[in-house]
Amino acid sequence: MSDISLIGMMSIFTAGLSIGLGAIGPAIGEGLALANAMRALAQQPDKANTITRTLFVGMALIESTAIYCFVVSMILIFANPFWNYVLDRSGG
Amino acid sequence: MSDISLIGMMSIFTAGLSIGLGAIGPAIGEGLALANAMRALAQQPDKANTITRTLFVGMALIESTAIYCFVVSMILIFANPFWNYVLDRSGG
Amino acid sequence: MSDISLIGMMSIFTAGLSIGLGAIGPAIGEGLALANAMRALAQQPDKANTITRTLFVGMALIESTAIYCFVVSMILIFANPFWNYVLDRSGG
Amino acid sequence: MSDISLIGMMSIFTAGLSIGLGAIGPAIGEGLALANAMRALAQQPDKANTITRTLFVGMALIESTAIYCFVVSMILIFANPFWNYVLDRSGG
Amino acid sequence: MSDISLIGMMSIFTAGLSIGLGAIGPAIGEGLALANAMRALAQQPDKANTITRTLFVGMALIESTAIYCFVVSMILIFANPFWNYVLDRSGG
Amino acid sequence: MSDISLIGMMSIFTAGLSIGLGAIGPAIGEGLALANAMRALAQQPDKANTITRTLFVGMALIESTAIYCFVVSMILIFANPFWNYVLDRSGG
Amino acid sequence: MSDISLIGMMSIFTAGLSIGLGAIGPAIGEGLALANAMRALAQQPDKANTITRTLFVGMALIESTAIYCFVVSMILIFANPFWNYVLDRSGG
Amino acid sequence: MSDISLIGMMSIFTAGLSIGLGAIGPAIGEGLALANAMRALAQQPDKANTITRTLFVGMALIESTAIYCFVVSMILIFANPFWNYVLDRSGG
Amino acid sequence: MSDISLIGMMSIFTAGLSIGLGAIGPAIGEGLALANAMRALAQQPDKANTITRTLFVGMALIESTAIYCFVVSMILIFANPFWNYVLDRSGG
Amino acid sequence: MSDISLIGMMSIFTAGLSIGLGAIGPAIGEGLALANAMRALAQQPDKANTITRTLFVGMALIESTAIYCFVVSMILIFANPFWNYVLDRSGG
Amino acid sequence: MSDISLIGMMSIFTAGLSIGLGAIGPAIGEGLALANAMRALAQQPDKANTITRTLFVGMALIESTAIYCFVVSMILIFANPFWNYVLDRSGG
Amino acid sequence: MSDISLIGMMSIFTAGLSIGLGAIGPAIGEGLALANAMRALAQQPDKANTITRTLFVGMALIESTAIYCFVVSMILIFANPFWNYVLDRSGG
Amino acid sequence: MSDISLIGMMSIFTAGLSIGLGAIGPAIGEGLALANAMRALAQQPDKANTITRTLFVGMALIESTAIYCFVVSMILIFANPFWNYVLDRSGG
Amino acid sequence: MSDISLIGMMSIFTAGLSIGLGAIGPAIGEGLALANAMRALAQQPDKANTITRTLFVGMALIESTAIYCFVVSMILIFANPFWNYVLDRSGG
Repeated sequence: MSDISLIGMMSIFTAGLSIGLGAIGPAIGEGLALANAMRALAQQPDKANTITRTLFVGMALIESTAIYCFVVSMILIFANPFWNYVLDRSGG
Repeated sequence: MSDISLIGMMSIFTAGLSIGLGAIGPAIGEGLALANAMRALAQQPDKANTITRTLFVGMALIESTAIYCFVVSMILIFANPFWNYVLDRSGG
Repeated sequence: MSDISLIGMMSIFTAGLSIGLGAIGPAIGEGLALANAMRALAQQPDKANTITRTLFVGMALIESTAIYCFVVSMILIFANPFWNYVLDRSGG
Repeated sequence: MSDISLIGMMSIFTAGLSIGLGAIGPAIGEGLALANAMRALAQQPDKANTITRTLFVGMALIESTAIYCFVVSMILIFANPFWNYVLDRSGG
Repeated sequence: MSDISLIGMMSIFTAGLSIGLGAIGPAIGEGLALANAMRALAQQPDKANTITRTLFVGMALIESTAIYCFVVSMILIFANPFWNYVLDRSGG
Repeated sequence: MSDISLIGMMSIFTAGLSIGLGAIGPAIGEGLALANAMRALAQQPDKANTITRTLFVGMALIESTAIYCFVVSMILIFANPFWNYVLDRSGG
Repeated sequence: MSDISLIGMMSIFTAGLSIGLGAIGPAIGEGLALANAMRALAQQPDKANTITRTLFVGMALIESTAIYCFVVSMILIFANPFWNYVLDRSGG
Repeated sequence: MSDISLIGMMSIFTAGLSIGLGAIGPAIGEGLALANAMRALAQQPDKANTITRTLFVGMALIESTAIYCFVVSMILIFANPFWNYVLDRSGG
Repeated sequence: MSDISLIGMMSIFTAGLSIGLGAIGPAIGEGLALANAMRALAQQPDKANTITRTLFVGMALIESTAIYCFVVSMILIFANPFWNYVLDRSGG
Repeated sequence: MSDISLIGMMSIFTAGLSIGLGAIGPAIGEGLALANAMRALAQQPDKANTITRTLFVGMALIESTAIYCFVVSMILIFANPFWNYVLDRSGG
Repeated sequence: MSDISLIGMMSIFTAGLSIGLGAIGPAIGEGLALANAMRALAQQPDKANTITRTLFVGMALIESTAIYCFVVSMILIFANPFWNYVLDRSGG
Repeated sequence: MSDISLIGMMSIFTAGLSIGLGAIGPAIGEGLALANAMRALAQQPDKANTITRTLFVGMALIESTAIYCFVVSMILIFANPFWNYVLDRSGG
Repeated sequence: MSDISLIGMMSIFTAGLSIGLGAIGPAIGEGLALANAMRALAQQPDKANTITRTLFVGMALIESTAIYCFVVSMILIFANPFWNYVLDRSGG
Repeated sequence: MSDISLIGMMSIFTAGLSIGLGAIGPAIGEGLALANAMRALAQQPDKANTITRTLFVGMALIESTAIYCFVVSMILIFANPFWNYVLDRSGG
């Protein structure tokens, strides 16, 4: 097990784990919010504008936590400083 | 256990784990939203248009977290930089 | 433990795990949606058309997350690039 | 531990795990839907036709996720490409 | 640990695990459905026929997921292709 | 660790695990159904016959999943083909 | 670790695990049923006979799943075919 | 690690595990039943006799699952056939 | 690792585990019962006698499952037949 | 790893685990009871005496399960027969 | 790994685990009680005295289970008989 | 396994785990808040301003716990003092 | 692995685990209490003083369990008697 | 594995775990509180001031448990006494 394969394996595994775990919370949170927005629309169809606007701004805020995970995942795959270092060292 | 088999095994396992875990949250979240949309339709059938439009835009947003996972999964299988490196190195 | 058996074992295990995990979320999510559609039909039997159409479009969207898992599972069994590489290398 | 026994063991284990896990979600989802169909029938016995038809179409859709798992399980037992390869190689 | 005992042990364990796991979901799903059928009967005793028929058809559909598990379990005990192969090979 | 003790140990463990796990679901499912039957009886005592009959037919269906587990457990203890094979082979 | 101690240890452990796990489900299921019987009695004290009879027949059915576990547990301690075989073989 | 210490250790551990696990279900089940009996008494104080009698008979039935576990636990400590055998064999 | 330290360690660990696990269920069960007794007292303060008597008899029954665990725990610490045997054998 | 350090380590670990696990159940159970006592007081402030007396007697009973754990924990730290034996034997 | 480091490590780990686990239950239990006290105050603001007094006495009782854990934790860090013994023995 | 690869692997894994775990809580918490804001808007559409302002300030506070995790994650990837030290030491 | 690194590693890990686990309970407990205080304020805005005072005294009591964990964590990092002993011994 | 890499790895891992775990509780607790504040605002929009003030003071108190975790995490990364000691000793 060379350094390269160890760093590589761990980067691959962490990239998948981080987005895999990180998709659970936001999806359930957004589902909860959307579900109640449906009820709100049924109760006050005249205020669809206000409700929809607040809903999408809020969902964007929740989505941001999923995006943090995606960003970490992409950094680990395409811009990983640890990987770059071991490649440099091995004269890659 | 050569480097190639280690990187390969980890890529395979992570690809499956990431989409496997990542399908749980969005599916439950979308189910929750759709369930309440059903109730809203039953309460305000005249506003079916507004309700359905908001529903599908919201579900697309939730679906996006599942798609992040699918993207990571596909990258790991078909465009994996770690795999490409070890192939290059072994003169593949 | 040759490379071939390691890559093979991991592909088999991941194919099963990914569809096994990935069937839990969509099935529960669709069950939730269908359950509320039943209630909506009982409340507004005259709007069965609108309700049923929205239901099946939504369930198709939820089903898509199960299909992502199935696709990954099939790729790993029948079109696995890692397996193909190790077969090629071993002169298969 | 020869390659044959490793690939064989993993195929057996995964076949059972995949259908074992994959039966939990659909069964609970269908139970939920059926439970609410019972309530809907009690509320609107005159619309039994519409309710029952939507119910069984929906349950078939949920059942499909269990069937994906069953298919993977059967492929692993009776049409496993990895097993076939190692048999061929060992001149079986 | 010969190949025979490894394949044998794994088949035994998987047979039990698959039916053990696979009995949880259907039993709870059917229990849920039956529980609500009780309520429906109490509410609309005159429609006992329609309710009971839909109930038993639905429960049969749920039972099918338990039966998939039982089938896999029986195949692994009595018609296991991996076991048959290793027996043949050892000249059994 | 001879083959005999390995196959024996695994059979013992799986027999217990399979019935141990398999008793959880049916017991809770039947408890749920019985609990609601109690409520139904309190609401419609005049229809005790219809309710009780549907209840016991349904509970028998749920019990069947526990019986699948018990059958697998008994097969593994008293009619285990893997155990019989290793006994035969060792000239038992 | 002789065969005798391995088979013995596994039998002891499985006997305890199987009844330990198997007591959880039935006890909770019966508790649920009894709890609702209490409510039913408070609602319809005049029908105590019908309610109590259905309750105890149902609880006996639930208890049966606990008894399956107890039977497996007793077989493993006092009539264990695997243990008897290894005793015979060691000339016990 | 002699046979005696292995069989002894496993008996001790299983005795504790079996009663430890087996106390969870019955205690919660009885608590549920008692809790609803309290409500029933508050609703129908005149029928305290009927309610209390059914309650204690039911709780005795639930307690029986805890007693199965206690019996297995006591057998393993004081009348353990496996322990007796290894003692006899070692000429104890 | 002599036999004495192995038997000793396992006895200590099991004594703590058994009472630690066994305290969870009864405490929650009794809390549930007491909580509903509070509500019953608030509803029918004139029947405080009947309610309190049934409550404490029931709680004693629940407490008994915790006491089973405590008894096993005390036996393992102060009257452990396995420990006594190994002490005797080592001429203690 | 001498006998002394093994027995010592296990006693320390078990002392902490037993009180750590054993504090969860009673605290939640007492919290549940106290929570409902608050509601009862708000509903029947004139009966504060009866309610409070029953509450504290009940909570003492629940507390007793936490005290069992604490007693086992203290015995293991300050009056541990296994530790005393190994000290005596090593001529301490 | 000398005896001193083993006993030391285990004491450190157990001290943290015991208070870490032991803080979960009491905090949730007290939160539950406080939450309902809020409601009670809103319902009967004139009885704030009685409610608050009962609340704080009850919360002190719940807090006591957290304090048991803290006491065990402090004994393990500052007055640990096992640690003192190994220090004495090593002539510390 | 050189120091560099160990420190590197652990940094990669922790960066992913910390943001992966840390995204679950905030996303669900914000979803809960947003869901109730929807209901509040439907109830008091005239106060949309006050509700929306409080909502977004509160969500920012919740988001801050996700940001702590993201900060730790970024520090571990791009400004890791442990990594810098081992690089310096190896004359990097 | 010298004594120093073992004691050091365990202290670091336990410090983080103890505060990490210990923050879950109090935060949820306080959130529950605060959530109900919001409702109480909406119901009885005139008694804001009494409600707020009781709330903050209660929350301080809950916070105390988090502080126990923080104290143990700080002791382990900055005033650790085990660490001090091993430093002294190594002539530090 | 030198002392430096062991202490370093454990510090990195604990820093991430402690903030990762510690973000779950506070975020959910604050979400719960904010959710109920939304309802309170919808019920009593005229008291927005009192409600908002109590809300933010309470949320700050909950946030404090997340901050304890963040503080421990930062100490472990930037002011770690164990790391400083091993650096000093290695003449760093």
